[in-house]
Amino acid sequence: MMMRSIRIKTPGTVANLVCGFDILGMALQEPFDELELKRTDQPGIVIHHKDDFGLPEDPLRNIAGVALQALVTERKVEGGFELHIKKNIRPGSGIGSSASSAMAPVFAANQLLDLNLNNEDMIRFAMEGEYVASGSRHADNLAPCLMGGLVLIRETEPLDLVPLDMPDLPVVVVHPQIEVKTAFARSILPKEVPLSQAVRQWANVAGMVTGFLKRDIPLLKRSMQDHIVEPVRSRLIPGYKEVMERCREAGLIGGGISGSGPSMFMFAEDEKGSAAAAAIIREVYDCLGIEYRVYITEINKRGAEAF
Amino acid sequence: MMMRSIRIKTPGTVANLVCGFDILGMALQEPFDELELKRTDQPGIVIHHKDDFGLPEDPLRNIAGVALQALVTERKVEGGFELHIKKNIRPGSGIGSSASSAMAPVFAANQLLDLNLNNEDMIRFAMEGEYVASGSRHADNLAPCLMGGLVLIRETEPLDLVPLDMPDLPVVVVHPQIEVKTAFARSILPKEVPLSQAVRQWANVAGMVTGFLKRDIPLLKRSMQDHIVEPVRSRLIPGYKEVMERCREAGLIGGGISGSGPSMFMFAEDEKGSAAAAAIIREVYDCLGIEYRVYITEINKRGAEAF
Repeated sequence: MMMRSIRIKTPGTVANLVCGFDILGMALQEPFDELELKRTDQPGIVIHHKDDFGLPEDPLRNIAGVALQALVTERKVEGGFELHIKKNIRPGSGIGSSASSAMAPVFAANQLLDLNLNNEDMIRFAMEGEYVASGSRHADNLAPCLMGGLVLIRETEPLDLVPLDMPDLPVVVVHPQIEVKTAFARSILPKEVPLSQAVRQWANVAGMVTGFLKRDIPLLKRSMQDHIVEPVRSRLIPGYKEVMERCREAGLIGGGISGSGPSMFMFAEDEKGSAAAAAIIREVYDCLGIEYRVYITEINKRGAEAF
Repeated sequence: MMMRSIRIKTPGTVANLVCGFDILGMALQEPFDELELKRTDQPGIVIHHKDDFGLPEDPLRNIAGVALQALVTERKVEGGFELHIKKNIRPGSGIGSSASSAMAPVFAANQLLDLNLNNEDMIRFAMEGEYVASGSRHADNLAPCLMGGLVLIRETEPLDLVPLDMPDLPVVVVHPQIEVKTAFARSILPKEVPLSQAVRQWANVAGMVTGFLKRDIPLLKRSMQDHIVEPVRSRLIPGYKEVMERCREAGLIGGGISGSGPSMFMFAEDEKGSAAAAAIIREVYDCLGIEYRVYITEINKRGAEAF
């Protein structure tokens, strides 16, 4: 007897991890979205939101609907689906809200229907949903959302996903409640970069990856520098520079912009460090008078899961 | 009673390791240079060559002389030195000949005089010698020449050297006996690179470093791609493309230009693989009628050492 419904959760994610622009993403314990997926005899996809973000319920305009439809069409799935979505990852926050929306129904359907899809296939379907949101097919939020932990997206075409070990570090994420459009954040990136700067960037990528794999905190501290994207995009985020500088001075490991912002994140060595980072964040944003939300969390090593 | 003389050897090195342009270097078991350093009561540096490369014996124009003089001056060393140098690493080969010349007397003097210099200091003195040869101060040959193994030069100013673990892989190096001037090889590099290409490069750097650290051969095979430097510089090396393509087809792991050429190198999984690579190289260069020298060797994990 086939299951009729499943409840799953999908984590928020940090893409563009410091110097790893476009190639490194990481899953967070919090926030996460919840989805209940039900099979129906009636064909078609029906979407219900259990949150108040006002996202479209038309499945052709909804990220989750489009992603699920891509799977249904290619795999010729019969019958229909009802989605009950409770988003906790705020759309536009820069912590992988759309990736979570796209990944959740695909992951849920794979489990519910016993489809045995591999990660690459699931991500390929979810990318169709991401495309609705951003106009581009990228996997640096989707891969960690599905797989958990830290993932290197070495290549997109064809997908080459490399899970990387990393120590269990506390992470502090702050979402200042301002709007940064992904398309605009992308438009201000340089089209070309000086070779000397690119070299510094890949030196830091090599250092950061080594630091994660070897759990070398001093090396992580030295390597967590982004000479290319952060200088341009951080100007869109009030308080960014002050938070980062003060966190560094306070001994935090390092961090950067989450995705294309406006959220930012910071790695700590321990709970004392994450408490210090949160205090700095609160001070800076209270002073600026900008609404914000802080997540004192850690790395999610499991990714999408039934619950 | 202080030692009066010491004999040491310093290994050839591969800089610009595949996609790790300017940041990754590796030491080879062969070829290596030999140096005997003797203390003399008479001040000054006297250089004797036990090879026939016609290198200058004037210590002010000789790489080894300049490097040693930098140490002698800063550390106010009394007396003088006699250097007996037997170079086996051909100047202009692209496998770290000048780095070996610069590193050897500094390493030898440090041991002979019990100076307790750290790696960064020794490399700093040797850089003065490298500067005579190339007009720039870089450490991507010096660091592996001194330390052995694979070294990430994360930053040059100040020096940040990160030794990386790697599996014991056979390496095949071929030196086609043509001349490629380092300055010219540098002049044809693009000053700027498209961001999208830089992203692909640092994705491969991340993959290659992970492949080395985790001994993941399939990942190494996928990641050993250089989209930026190899396309430009490989055109200066007759036979390069054919050797590389045929080695890839034969299942070799991957490789690239050594330094700024003309030598190239290739990683093999085992001795069968290195024999296959050597056979391909011989076929290609015999057919082209270009003189060449092949080294079927492996990674040198010890670096400079007394013997």
